[in-house]
Amino acid sequence: MSLLAEAGVPESLWANIVQSCFAKRSQDVFTSSTHNVAPQKITIIGGRGRMGRFFTNQLASADRTVSVLESEDWDRADELLGSADLVMVSVPIEWTTEVIKRAAQYLAPTTALCDITSLKVEPVQAMLDHHSGPVMGLHPMFGPNVKSFVGEKVVACPGRNEESFQWLLELIEDRGGEVIVSTPEEHDRMMVIIQATRHFSRFSVGVFLAQEKVDIERSLLMSSPSYRQEIEIIKRLFAQNPNLCVDIMLATPERCQAIARLADTYDRVAMLVARKDREGLIKEFETCQNFILKMA
Amino acid sequence: MSLLAEAGVPESLWANIVQSCFAKRSQDVFTSSTHNVAPQKITIIGGRGRMGRFFTNQLASADRTVSVLESEDWDRADELLGSADLVMVSVPIEWTTEVIKRAAQYLAPTTALCDITSLKVEPVQAMLDHHSGPVMGLHPMFGPNVKSFVGEKVVACPGRNEESFQWLLELIEDRGGEVIVSTPEEHDRMMVIIQATRHFSRFSVGVFLAQEKVDIERSLLMSSPSYRQEIEIIKRLFAQNPNLCVDIMLATPERCQAIARLADTYDRVAMLVARKDREGLIKEFETCQNFILKMA
Repeated sequence: MSLLAEAGVPESLWANIVQSCFAKRSQDVFTSSTHNVAPQKITIIGGRGRMGRFFTNQLASADRTVSVLESEDWDRADELLGSADLVMVSVPIEWTTEVIKRAAQYLAPTTALCDITSLKVEPVQAMLDHHSGPVMGLHPMFGPNVKSFVGEKVVACPGRNEESFQWLLELIEDRGGEVIVSTPEEHDRMMVIIQATRHFSRFSVGVFLAQEKVDIERSLLMSSPSYRQEIEIIKRLFAQNPNLCVDIMLATPERCQAIARLADTYDRVAMLVARKDREGLIKEFETCQNFILKMA
Repeated sequence: MSLLAEAGVPESLWANIVQSCFAKRSQDVFTSSTHNVAPQKITIIGGRGRMGRFFTNQLASADRTVSVLESEDWDRADELLGSADLVMVSVPIEWTTEVIKRAAQYLAPTTALCDITSLKVEPVQAMLDHHSGPVMGLHPMFGPNVKSFVGEKVVACPGRNEESFQWLLELIEDRGGEVIVSTPEEHDRMMVIIQATRHFSRFSVGVFLAQEKVDIERSLLMSSPSYRQEIEIIKRLFAQNPNLCVDIMLATPERCQAIARLADTYDRVAMLVARKDREGLIKEFETCQNFILKMA
């Protein structure tokens, strides 16, 4: 890797590429699970959504029986949920708690219940409150456009009887994913930064570029590598569903408050720029330089 | 490349890596210029700065005679500038015009004069005003930490007698660089977006992360690829000289005004978030989605 380092290519970037390429190849290779455990009956609530389909495909290709419960199927909830070994909730953030409450009444005490939304405190608490069996909160840190788990992270927040989910976490890891264990509280605190404020910034820059009618094609031609990377990140955001993006910002009061604090920071720095306060800006830069450079 | 595309790896990213690796290798390969033109006497004003050293090395390794004029060498200006075929101004933005004015009086009418600062309207005009010979504005779109021109962009703004710079542009291209020709006006307009407002955003996010005392190492562990990319971009900014970063934001009134407009946009979007105005946010998202997705 030292050639990459000397050439100024971050290793993480190289790793991403290798993993993404491997992901494409490995799709054709995995036809059945590498685990020979008894088949599991799984029901995915919201399984026809984009993330739902990803998990349906992954689990079906591991020889699990996967059923789907969509909003129009609640009259079959007894059949679809009553005999499932695992029930996975894959619905938009704002419906998650309600759906958990509704689904829980059909579950056997042995059924493992998990959700895959991008919040964890509330859903995990709702699952613990309404279901007496195994509970785990999961958060796949990727969008539904990925081809496999290779190189992707899944945050897992154990709620109760985590051993019931061991096969699922191992399946994710066997397929190249990385499982990060966290408490729901730590997860939600981190996602305020990783998701909510970043979505806000990318979104706002997109709005700004449109407002200013920037000739993006020409700007990319004249650009620095950082700018090209940032434009790619913004394009990925705007390829998403607007509801998903807005949900991620509005999901909790903590997220809205952090976005307000970030907007204040932008304002404070912009004020120094407007005043052409070179000293003030350099002081801010240096304070923050110490913090940023001592990190990973 | 279709495997990369299917795997969701942007081709530009792959191209960057290949180019960076090639850059490292090609360093050892280039010992003399591929051009067999008469040796050129070059003087770089500010040649002991980091960018100055990069150009000194590149030109010296192409068998050019490179002299350096630093601030303490003005008593030798006659000797250093009077007989040069090319004089390159490589000083901080705020001194550029003054240095051009001062240097021009020592130049022969045949001397080619160029600068490499990140502004072009003012410096090119100053060079045209104070020197009667060949003039060109150059802006290398990379930092002094690069190893070679491979995969890097240089914006060239012809001022007068551009054929005198042909050998220099060819040398850059022969060594793997890309020369983008632009007017000083277009260049400066683009750099407001590519450099000034992006520096402001990255800078402000860094200040915010420090303020919030975010455990960046842990956040990277739980993060999405976009977040990791953004943290890398921010780290690169804070590895720079604070003066350089601040200069790029404050260089022109247009830059300061664009930063103020961007801060207003952040504010407007943050207000929608504070009001939990889901409809308003989705409307902004969709307006902007059309703009962003129709671009390159």
